Amino acid sequence: MKALPGFRDFYPPSLAVRQYLFETWRRQATRYGFREYDGPPLEPLELYTLKSGQEIVRQLYNFTDKGDRAVALRPEMTPTLARMVAAAHREYKKPLKWFAIPQLFRYEKQQRGRLREHFQFNADIIGESDIGADAELVALAIDTLCALGLTRQDFVVRLSDRRAWARQLERLGVAPEQHPAVLDAVDKMEREPLEKTQEKLAAITSRGAEVLEFAQRGQPGEELAELLARLGTLAEFCRVDYRIVRGLAYYTGIVWEIHDARGELRAIAGGGRYDNLIALVGGVDLPALGFGMGDVVLTELLKERGLLPAYRPQLDVYVVIADESLRGAAWGLIHGLRQAGCAVDYALAPAKVSKQFQQASALGARYAVVVGATEWQAGEVTLKNMETGAEERVAASAIATRIS
Amino acid sequence: MKALPGFRDFYPPSLAVRQYLFETWRRQATRYGFREYDGPPLEPLELYTLKSGQEIVRQLYNFTDKGDRAVALRPEMTPTLARMVAAAHREYKKPLKWFAIPQLFRYEKQQRGRLREHFQFNADIIGESDIGADAELVALAIDTLCALGLTRQDFVVRLSDRRAWARQLERLGVAPEQHPAVLDAVDKMEREPLEKTQEKLAAITSRGAEVLEFAQRGQPGEELAELLARLGTLAEFCRVDYRIVRGLAYYTGIVWEIHDARGELRAIAGGGRYDNLIALVGGVDLPALGFGMGDVVLTELLKERGLLPAYRPQLDVYVVIADESLRGAAWGLIHGLRQAGCAVDYALAPAKVSKQFQQASALGARYAVVVGATEWQAGEVTLKNMETGAEERVAASAIATRIS
Repeated sequence: MKALPGFRDFYPPSLAVRQYLFETWRRQATRYGFREYDGPPLEPLELYTLKSGQEIVRQLYNFTDKGDRAVALRPEMTPTLARMVAAAHREYKKPLKWFAIPQLFRYEKQQRGRLREHFQFNADIIGESDIGADAELVALAIDTLCALGLTRQDFVVRLSDRRAWARQLERLGVAPEQHPAVLDAVDKMEREPLEKTQEKLAAITSRGAEVLEFAQRGQPGEELAELLARLGTLAEFCRVDYRIVRGLAYYTGIVWEIHDARGELRAIAGGGRYDNLIALVGGVDLPALGFGMGDVVLTELLKERGLLPAYRPQLDVYVVIADESLRGAAWGLIHGLRQAGCAVDYALAPAKVSKQFQQASALGARYAVVVGATEWQAGEVTLKNMETGAEERVAASAIATRIS
Repeated sequence: MKALPGFRDFYPPSLAVRQYLFETWRRQATRYGFREYDGPPLEPLELYTLKSGQEIVRQLYNFTDKGDRAVALRPEMTPTLARMVAAAHREYKKPLKWFAIPQLFRYEKQQRGRLREHFQFNADIIGESDIGADAELVALAIDTLCALGLTRQDFVVRLSDRRAWARQLERLGVAPEQHPAVLDAVDKMEREPLEKTQEKLAAITSRGAEVLEFAQRGQPGEELAELLARLGTLAEFCRVDYRIVRGLAYYTGIVWEIHDARGELRAIAGGGRYDNLIALVGGVDLPALGFGMGDVVLTELLKERGLLPAYRPQLDVYVVIADESLRGAAWGLIHGLRQAGCAVDYALAPAKVSKQFQQASALGARYAVVVGATEWQAGEVTLKNMETGAEERVAASAIATRIS
């Protein structure tokens, strides 16, 4: 029997990679003063259709539960956050700086071989309309990637602004009702031949050429210039790029994506300001912004750059029981070492000493401790450094301090 | 809009409790030489019906997906583990010692107000038939509860053995085909009046009184005596109690549960040996055993005993920007502190100094660093210990080392 198509099994080596990402995400978010929250992986379907319309349903892992409720495995975290914040924002001082590491789900029938779940680092700021909040999130995303060993040679932050787009389209005389179609064409332009985009734009407006010119070479407006100034030295990682629109309907201000510098992979992260969403979901008017950074593309990039840490299980000591009559005594020693904080393993059933040493090596133990009859009578054991091979006799009571 | 019935929102204070449990589970498992794995939260329905029959379906969060597959949100981790191990066991040296912290789901229509999800610490050993493996798991469970501050006054490990039951029933002349009905009556006896159990047993066998006597006062057989010996000092936490049967069909040997000492709550943990399951799920014959420890009952118990850590957000420094013209300089300082590993927050928008100090207090910052014009000209800032109120001027470059 196999896992369902699009779902991953995490064996210990791949779980270790996932845990390395999670720990880095958690550490960086904490340094930035963000606090962790979580919500249910299953939510009312309405939470998603409310914002995105019925159209979203064909991408969702949705079903009707036994209580006849329309429900969906969460495809993104923001609606859950909006729901939670609307319900309890009075208990917290604004701005809220919250993060989560949810597993997200999508079911797209046509895309075979593509994953149907992934994990995503989500960080959001609620209740702050100042551009300082936009800068804080972009900085967090950049520092998180740098903490993983990535540099300016590896990734670029592409900054855009929905308001700049609205102003530009107005300036060009594009009617407001045509803005969504124009932005949709721009949003897709990197995945299509340029001619296709030109045709699409020409069908919408006589100013298609100017629209394209802005998408490709538009200069930073007041807000993006201010954002770059706020980012200080981190502005080096960024460039203004109005081709970034972000498909989701709810963005209202600055939007951005992070891509690998060679542009070979899908986006590493994406986010922006969505000042109207919390009012829509929860009836509470609070400015908000956030980003998401998934585990799949990021892991691909880190792997490609040789930046994933080698899988090295944490095992401080393997205790070799050289004399079965000492198993009880050895167990006391093992228990004491574990109490003292050491990661310790040993043969659960009687085994030859040579086989126990093989296991110690296979498990990557830093030290082996041999419990043998002669030494034990003197209250001692043999401590072997598994890397250097050096052996010495030490008091059983002194091991924990010797190896730490 | 609300979360679905039976699902929890984890706001930062409750997420912190959850994270405290997860970290303790992870640390103890690592000390015991266990390695973390994970599988999908959604699995083929067949993975569960294979072992437990169609009857299990009424308790599952199951549905038909868009690809017409019968699927279920995982109600337990063991079938996923069995599937994964059967597929890849050749790549790992036996015994495998693996753990996971999955979120699990159940949908029981009749039980309103009861949770439909919980998190569970799962630890399993695969490929070891020696009773040393049983002892290892019981010891891990005990040490995990002790690491959370619980003592012998708080919980008891109740040990039982399916083989001892089989032998006893055989000795009493109870026909093998009646064993399941007898064990089912015993399994339910603590939730029913004694007379009810007596009636049930009398209806099955003429030896009902002796069955009851064994359930209540049966002495340890050879295996349980050996297990207690192996547990050394930890045997103090255990008692033999044949009322423990464990409802799940797949146990084959020693089974156990951990309960609060007063017997007021549901089980804190439960496990046992299931030597046939991996062959059933994956066609590979490997002895196996494991336990699960849920977050809900455990959190209740810790709360009742006053053992939950106080919610104390981690914030080392709140930087107070006393002069807006220094915001850029302050940001450089903030960024440097974060790079140095400090958790730092600050006002993202201009605010009065008094309001910034209020926020520093509200967020529980250990220190405030005030960036003011006069001090900054001398390359200095004011460092305030938020607990003692003590203030001093220090070089901006020296803060990270001063507060660590």
